[in-house]
Amino acid sequence: MAQITKRSQDYSRWYQDVIQAAELAENSPVRGCMVIRPNGYAIWENIQRTLDDKFKELGHVNAYFPLLIPKSFLAKEAEHVEGFAKECAIVTHHRLKQVTENGKTTVIPDPESKLEEEYVIRPTSETVIWDMYRKWIQSYRDLPILINQWANVMRWEMRTRMFLRTTEFLWQEGHTAHATAEEGREETLSILEVYRWFAEEILAMPVIMGAKTANERFAGAAETYSIEAMMQDRKALQVATSHDLGQNFAKAFDVKYQDAEGKVEYVWATSWGMSTRIMGALIMCHSDDDGLVVPPRIAATKAVIVPIWRSEEEMAQVVPAAEKLAAELRPVIGAVHVDKRDNMRPGWKDGEWERKGVPLRMELGPRDLDDEKVMMVARHDRNKQPVGFADLMTVVPVELERIQQDLYDSALKRRNEATVTVDSWE
Amino acid sequence: MAQITKRSQDYSRWYQDVIQAAELAENSPVRGCMVIRPNGYAIWENIQRTLDDKFKELGHVNAYFPLLIPKSFLAKEAEHVEGFAKECAIVTHHRLKQVTENGKTTVIPDPESKLEEEYVIRPTSETVIWDMYRKWIQSYRDLPILINQWANVMRWEMRTRMFLRTTEFLWQEGHTAHATAEEGREETLSILEVYRWFAEEILAMPVIMGAKTANERFAGAAETYSIEAMMQDRKALQVATSHDLGQNFAKAFDVKYQDAEGKVEYVWATSWGMSTRIMGALIMCHSDDDGLVVPPRIAATKAVIVPIWRSEEEMAQVVPAAEKLAAELRPVIGAVHVDKRDNMRPGWKDGEWERKGVPLRMELGPRDLDDEKVMMVARHDRNKQPVGFADLMTVVPVELERIQQDLYDSALKRRNEATVTVDSWE
Repeated sequence: MAQITKRSQDYSRWYQDVIQAAELAENSPVRGCMVIRPNGYAIWENIQRTLDDKFKELGHVNAYFPLLIPKSFLAKEAEHVEGFAKECAIVTHHRLKQVTENGKTTVIPDPESKLEEEYVIRPTSETVIWDMYRKWIQSYRDLPILINQWANVMRWEMRTRMFLRTTEFLWQEGHTAHATAEEGREETLSILEVYRWFAEEILAMPVIMGAKTANERFAGAAETYSIEAMMQDRKALQVATSHDLGQNFAKAFDVKYQDAEGKVEYVWATSWGMSTRIMGALIMCHSDDDGLVVPPRIAATKAVIVPIWRSEEEMAQVVPAAEKLAAELRPVIGAVHVDKRDNMRPGWKDGEWERKGVPLRMELGPRDLDDEKVMMVARHDRNKQPVGFADLMTVVPVELERIQQDLYDSALKRRNEATVTVDSWE
Repeated sequence: MAQITKRSQDYSRWYQDVIQAAELAENSPVRGCMVIRPNGYAIWENIQRTLDDKFKELGHVNAYFPLLIPKSFLAKEAEHVEGFAKECAIVTHHRLKQVTENGKTTVIPDPESKLEEEYVIRPTSETVIWDMYRKWIQSYRDLPILINQWANVMRWEMRTRMFLRTTEFLWQEGHTAHATAEEGREETLSILEVYRWFAEEILAMPVIMGAKTANERFAGAAETYSIEAMMQDRKALQVATSHDLGQNFAKAFDVKYQDAEGKVEYVWATSWGMSTRIMGALIMCHSDDDGLVVPPRIAATKAVIVPIWRSEEEMAQVVPAAEKLAAELRPVIGAVHVDKRDNMRPGWKDGEWERKGVPLRMELGPRDLDDEKVMMVARHDRNKQPVGFADLMTVVPVELERIQQDLYDSALKRRNEATVTVDSWE
């Protein structure tokens, strides 16, 4: 079992330990790239599902564009090449060849397979998408285009940290095209509001929204907005951005439309993204020295029931009872796990579920069964209360809501305490 | 509007035309890679959702492994390198550099950023996954591992066709680890049955299951099973594979476990995948000379309501009525679209929805509204019937089921007519 370093000792080491103890992710043999393990990926799937539903509610559709971007594309938008085309993975050959040198057989890139034009693994997809938009947009009737893509991207980072900064990461990238500057601005801000809602309402993570200074803007943007959350070490972390791209990409890729009066104009653009970095923020925002803490609305498993027994006879009673309760709870609160492992003591199981951040644990022993109750324990504050079987369906959802609110309130309190309003230059 | 070539004229051209007319996908500026447009991607999302639910029902979980694979990994499994490491995208540098030659500024891979060991964009992920499994598996208690991944992969194909064979494609790849050969075999066959179920019950596409000959086996597999469907040109198309990998990858990556008696043994493996190629099969199996035909169970939009009007006054009556019917139908059958566009004649709209393969179309004009009925038209056989508003909620689901069954029966009939049982060597 992995030992978790205390936050007060080494905050950065604590973060790594929580990820390891909860089996969320692991470093891979590929430099700067991580493996997202099933426990971590299940949270990412919930993030995807929730955001995706919201994007679609607002009229967006998903599509998929190529992983590779021709080198020349990156150079089309002047600022974009400066900002993105530098540290990226470059594909130069398309075939491996076996060669024997000094009696040893090895594989090398076949010199004959050298590409005429190199490709870059997408660091972001504006260029390849706007090259397509040129073909799709002729008239104002073709607008707006509201497309989102779920994809992997790659930026060759020198210093990486799991989830927060990795060479490859997963994200969604929205790329919209509009007839007017106003519409583009509205879209940019409407998505910013989606990100705020998602961070605060679903991840219980209070954020600050704002426009970036000209220096910090996305390469090629007219205006970049971001949401930032404050972590327990009082550092602000940018967790999503929404860019008003003006007509920069339309001009670089020559995307024009004819309006209802027959006038031809360049199209207005936005792009916006949230990545697996949000997982790092989520971990850092709520977790404690015992491991991961996850708000119920995004947790993969909402509750775990741990049946307790000393004999086979007891096991034959408590396990089916636990299964029955879980089956009743699932339609009400979502995923409920029953921990039936018989090679592990209950105390060890408790510790494991705490490290893994399941919001609610319910213990069910033979005496509990006789009394028709469970002992319910909240992960984040260890609040313990016995709950009768008859009350479970009403009490559990209320307790999950209390946890969600509590996590938000704590994070907000922490932020307010650390925030000083500056109202004079001195 | 795109003209669709007749199947009898040029089957291959017809296939391309259907894809273009239904706006499913398009060639991209990246050699051999396509853009999956929103109409195509919505079907892929339904495929993902349906398969993913089934995998999870059977105990599988999702995870994510790196896009890049160190060159040396591919060489570890001897047959694997032969089969996969040949035609693939090779990453050799990690930085672009601006250079000025003859007064012209351009970007080149920075020679100083040459990688010590090249990476290959995953053609499949066995090697990088089994390298991780070595760390995750020690005891029989760690088994089985039932992991699936939704990802993009890349194989540098010389001749590409949209969906059927593209350099980059999307897929799911399952990678499981087991304590015994029997368990591995059972998993391989259980997934093969999932693929059969999915193809036949959801895609209405009859398939033949079978084991491949030694020559056709996956590189590194002990046994490869596949399902194949017959297209309208009477050619068989392989649409999914399930591999019993034996202990080959465990041996190549040194993955052993200790059983309950303390004996140490190599782990048994399977891998299995279905890709965006299935979209090509789906398109070819059911579509006709008027465009796309999609079975209702996988269609993104199940039905479209086309209100018909000649005056603003009529429009003010039929459009809200159509919206009301759609809102009532959605909880019963899923996505229903109301085509309110006022810059297009109804006949043109009908043609568009036929090309796009929406299974059911309902026309609602002012007289229909007076009579409280719609004219319902099935896409695949043009079966027309008036349906009273009061019967809509019961008649529409029945009609969708009829369409689903009909498409399956037609495909099965076609296959049976083209199949000859060979029972003697002569």
